[in-house]
Amino acid sequence: MINFRTDLADERHSMYKKANKISDDIDGIRTESEEINKDLSINRVIIENENGQEAINKPIGKYITIDMKKLTIAQEDEIMQAAESFSKELQNLINEKVDDKGEILVVGLGNIYVTPDALGPKVIEQIEVTRHIIKYLPQYIDENAREVSAVSPGVLGTTGIETVEIIKGIVDNIKPKLLIVIDALASKSIERINKTIQISNTGIVPGAGVGNTRKEISQNSLGIPVIAVGVPTVVESAVMVNECLDIFIEKLQNEAKSNDYLNKLKEEDNYEEIKEALIPKDYNLIVTPKEIDELVDKMAEVVSRGINMSM
Amino acid sequence: MINFRTDLADERHSMYKKANKISDDIDGIRTESEEINKDLSINRVIIENENGQEAINKPIGKYITIDMKKLTIAQEDEIMQAAESFSKELQNLINEKVDDKGEILVVGLGNIYVTPDALGPKVIEQIEVTRHIIKYLPQYIDENAREVSAVSPGVLGTTGIETVEIIKGIVDNIKPKLLIVIDALASKSIERINKTIQISNTGIVPGAGVGNTRKEISQNSLGIPVIAVGVPTVVESAVMVNECLDIFIEKLQNEAKSNDYLNKLKEEDNYEEIKEALIPKDYNLIVTPKEIDELVDKMAEVVSRGINMSM
Amino acid sequence: MINFRTDLADERHSMYKKANKISDDIDGIRTESEEINKDLSINRVIIENENGQEAINKPIGKYITIDMKKLTIAQEDEIMQAAESFSKELQNLINEKVDDKGEILVVGLGNIYVTPDALGPKVIEQIEVTRHIIKYLPQYIDENAREVSAVSPGVLGTTGIETVEIIKGIVDNIKPKLLIVIDALASKSIERINKTIQISNTGIVPGAGVGNTRKEISQNSLGIPVIAVGVPTVVESAVMVNECLDIFIEKLQNEAKSNDYLNKLKEEDNYEEIKEALIPKDYNLIVTPKEIDELVDKMAEVVSRGINMSM
Amino acid sequence: MINFRTDLADERHSMYKKANKISDDIDGIRTESEEINKDLSINRVIIENENGQEAINKPIGKYITIDMKKLTIAQEDEIMQAAESFSKELQNLINEKVDDKGEILVVGLGNIYVTPDALGPKVIEQIEVTRHIIKYLPQYIDENAREVSAVSPGVLGTTGIETVEIIKGIVDNIKPKLLIVIDALASKSIERINKTIQISNTGIVPGAGVGNTRKEISQNSLGIPVIAVGVPTVVESAVMVNECLDIFIEKLQNEAKSNDYLNKLKEEDNYEEIKEALIPKDYNLIVTPKEIDELVDKMAEVVSRGINMSM
Repeated sequence: MINFRTDLADERHSMYKKANKISDDIDGIRTESEEINKDLSINRVIIENENGQEAINKPIGKYITIDMKKLTIAQEDEIMQAAESFSKELQNLINEKVDDKGEILVVGLGNIYVTPDALGPKVIEQIEVTRHIIKYLPQYIDENAREVSAVSPGVLGTTGIETVEIIKGIVDNIKPKLLIVIDALASKSIERINKTIQISNTGIVPGAGVGNTRKEISQNSLGIPVIAVGVPTVVESAVMVNECLDIFIEKLQNEAKSNDYLNKLKEEDNYEEIKEALIPKDYNLIVTPKEIDELVDKMAEVVSRGINMSM
Repeated sequence: MINFRTDLADERHSMYKKANKISDDIDGIRTESEEINKDLSINRVIIENENGQEAINKPIGKYITIDMKKLTIAQEDEIMQAAESFSKELQNLINEKVDDKGEILVVGLGNIYVTPDALGPKVIEQIEVTRHIIKYLPQYIDENAREVSAVSPGVLGTTGIETVEIIKGIVDNIKPKLLIVIDALASKSIERINKTIQISNTGIVPGAGVGNTRKEISQNSLGIPVIAVGVPTVVESAVMVNECLDIFIEKLQNEAKSNDYLNKLKEEDNYEEIKEALIPKDYNLIVTPKEIDELVDKMAEVVSRGINMSM
Repeated sequence: MINFRTDLADERHSMYKKANKISDDIDGIRTESEEINKDLSINRVIIENENGQEAINKPIGKYITIDMKKLTIAQEDEIMQAAESFSKELQNLINEKVDDKGEILVVGLGNIYVTPDALGPKVIEQIEVTRHIIKYLPQYIDENAREVSAVSPGVLGTTGIETVEIIKGIVDNIKPKLLIVIDALASKSIERINKTIQISNTGIVPGAGVGNTRKEISQNSLGIPVIAVGVPTVVESAVMVNECLDIFIEKLQNEAKSNDYLNKLKEEDNYEEIKEALIPKDYNLIVTPKEIDELVDKMAEVVSRGINMSM
Repeated sequence: MINFRTDLADERHSMYKKANKISDDIDGIRTESEEINKDLSINRVIIENENGQEAINKPIGKYITIDMKKLTIAQEDEIMQAAESFSKELQNLINEKVDDKGEILVVGLGNIYVTPDALGPKVIEQIEVTRHIIKYLPQYIDENAREVSAVSPGVLGTTGIETVEIIKGIVDNIKPKLLIVIDALASKSIERINKTIQISNTGIVPGAGVGNTRKEISQNSLGIPVIAVGVPTVVESAVMVNECLDIFIEKLQNEAKSNDYLNKLKEEDNYEEIKEALIPKDYNLIVTPKEIDELVDKMAEVVSRGINMSM
């Protein structure tokens, strides 16, 4: 089986077709795509049977990807438009599972103290929770309002507890009808980092894409439907190099380089050529390791103490 | 001339020797290296004449690199030991330029709101400034204390002013005898990010390594000696891929792969092989773009609004 | 009954004695006090029977207060000494309830995004959790290590869920033998804000001191012993004015002011006299509302937009 | 002379009239007031001659106060409306001093690391600077655009340099035609904290209101016109008690309390009465000291270490 190294059904689908040199549709996988505008597009991958499930190693269900190309420079209007497209897709998945009054618990995975991993907790901070108002101050809220609650359970490394154990405890105790869980995904593409949202009605396995498989968060483990909202937040460097290598080799082949080119590659400095190959794909980013917050703090400690001692 | 893409004299020296297939010393460049312990080492590159200067395109002067291999997991003891080694080297350079009472201004470049670029401002926050105490409350401080002041001038993109213009204004007005400037450097090696300090007695050009050359901060432009304390904080992705490519090709050659291997490279998925090649060098990091803070905030906006609207 | 407006047993004990003009001991309340050094002292209030319980409206149990006078300017040594004194007292209470291997869950109440309320989450970030290592990587940890886990459940306003419901869910699921819960307390004294720790073996009621009583977190509600670690983080302004009024009236009486003085008070500006009265007690602090983080952010929005529009 | 303890000309004007039992206008002070809506009002105090200047101890000039009552719960619309009102007033003052192309430097005083003092740096982060674009990329900007630059010079305690010295250095070097300086003000009223903006065309003296007078930032010291944008961010506790005392005594007098009431005040607990008196004025806030960020961090250190050691 292919080692997909991505949690995006959309990317897995392409990889599977490429690896198996398939140009037609795959039995059991249906796809749709929609372009809202030049910077905002939606892709839907629907896995309909076990053949599709096995092909891309994702459970039967719907996987909707929303891509926002220019999020870094997006203004209020574009942020709102992206939020609306995302909301519409999400609402469809919610309506398949619960009615208008079905209580929802939103769970934001991730670590607030690690910038690349802080999305989940930051989303939770901004969710408009209503459960406590409906319970204690019903006079202040529309009587048809849905009970919404939200938690940010932390990560295994700082809690010592599997995320699913914390969520299961809360679910058993407050009994929501549906869970929405926000998670970091692995992607193959650095240009998708924090610019793509995948919504799926199958639940998720935290950290699956980056090698530290933990227990799944799904109807299976929790007894209620789980909608996963995943955002790619980091890329493994081997994945990135692999993808860059493809781009680079493609360029070499297009230029019909002789076979002894490889021998020369090591000798020479290929920076300019690599850069030239990457630029058209908007790949020449500046990158930094995931643990950057901690590294900056420790280095600031070393440098400031060193300067203080030397004066 | 070589496009070095690194501000570290140490890396430039190796690149120059490799590019020119030199194994001996270069005329005009003297090097020393010292291993404090297995996780802490010091390299000194001393450029002694114009030949050396031209070879690695760095002004005549001293460039001292302190490498801290395990900074991410460093405890109090190791942080203190690194700070002491750094302090000793820095003190030597200070003593060459000013006496014990010579006023020093410490300048921290960078942007406090961008995690990978926040080192300079974070260091400034922790500098023990004395200038105001000596001026207004001399009874509370040792009479031999040196006047130390510290500023964090911001970056061109948020101030609209060249950093050197701000510094020049302050230097002209408060007249320190020496400047220490903390800056982000470019490095070729992702494993050096926030783990290496380069100290030099030549001053620096902010952003030189990442393509946005601005005016230099040096004795030349400011009229007082400038000691630069630089830390690599990001790596350009083309640089990283180039370096990974070297590692990868080396592996292919060691395994005496046939010449048609290249043709197959594109067809196949090389992830596992690349990973295998990178792991021994501790290269298989998780990477994230430099503008991660902004991306996380905007994405949190999109996701939380979308969820709120859908419920 | 007295409206104590403080969660500190130590302060309640003094208030009760003052209100009832008692100078001797109260039946059912035993006190001890210990001065570690001039800036660090420990007070123990032990409620031994129902009479004591009724007097100060706190359940039978031990309440230990550790006061750190100079915490703002404390250096490494003083922080460590305070941590050691606190640790010793805490350990005594832990040993009364569980053995060396008894699993402990540490819970940090409060809101990470509201500076005055962020203590609990900040503590949790620094707890050395072991539960996951003991479960998954036992070879890396001493076989006698205690299972420690830690969570930061958020606050009702952002989760929509009673804190005790979240904790109960987790406790039922992971079954620790003891809970340590870190909470913000109300105190009568502004000089105790973030400088006093109260440890008690009776559990706590979150927010009791500031008027928003919620369900208790105790052996009663959770089925396991609960040690509460509380820190006063804010003072209600009516409480502060009341206390300042006492100090002010005391000063007026000491100076044997005539009876028509009150009439003149309103006419005149009493700032200097109030300041004079407050200074000896180190009371003349600068105050700011609790929601300061949000206010600063919104005001920055107004001012920066206004400036941008006007230029 | 009255000790005003407020930097707001509006409050000083009221205090002066009250202290001198004046109900008419004061010679040399003209006032205007405008109510935009029930939550947004503008007051203008124009000091026209030396008599006015002496009365309220503020230089001849205009002082415009914008009050936003509901800022804590303000939504996008209300923030925008407040920004527009502020912008209109600011623009009038700017137009009196420079033409459409006159270069402006915006300076944000305060300390980014101290929440109640972070307004200035937070505003600077959001100013749309144009100076570097006009200089280096004029093709990307309207040719009539004004050169705007922005700096956040830090505070004396962390730089060791008087703020005015840093600003003077920059002004001499980049030569703007006008300075806008954002500063924290002292106010007498806790309900104005971060809810009021004062704009004046006279410049300001940093920290004047809170007892640490430093050199003024004005046309006098810098040679160019200075518009001050000030926001009250903290209230001194003696000021607050004084004001609460007025409210409290007024209540006693309204209730025609007997003269021996004062003697009883100290005996009794007056919390409920004070609270009752404060509530109608929306005064019963929760207060916290200014150095709250540092206190929370140090206390988190003590508590987490203590817990770690005890387990």
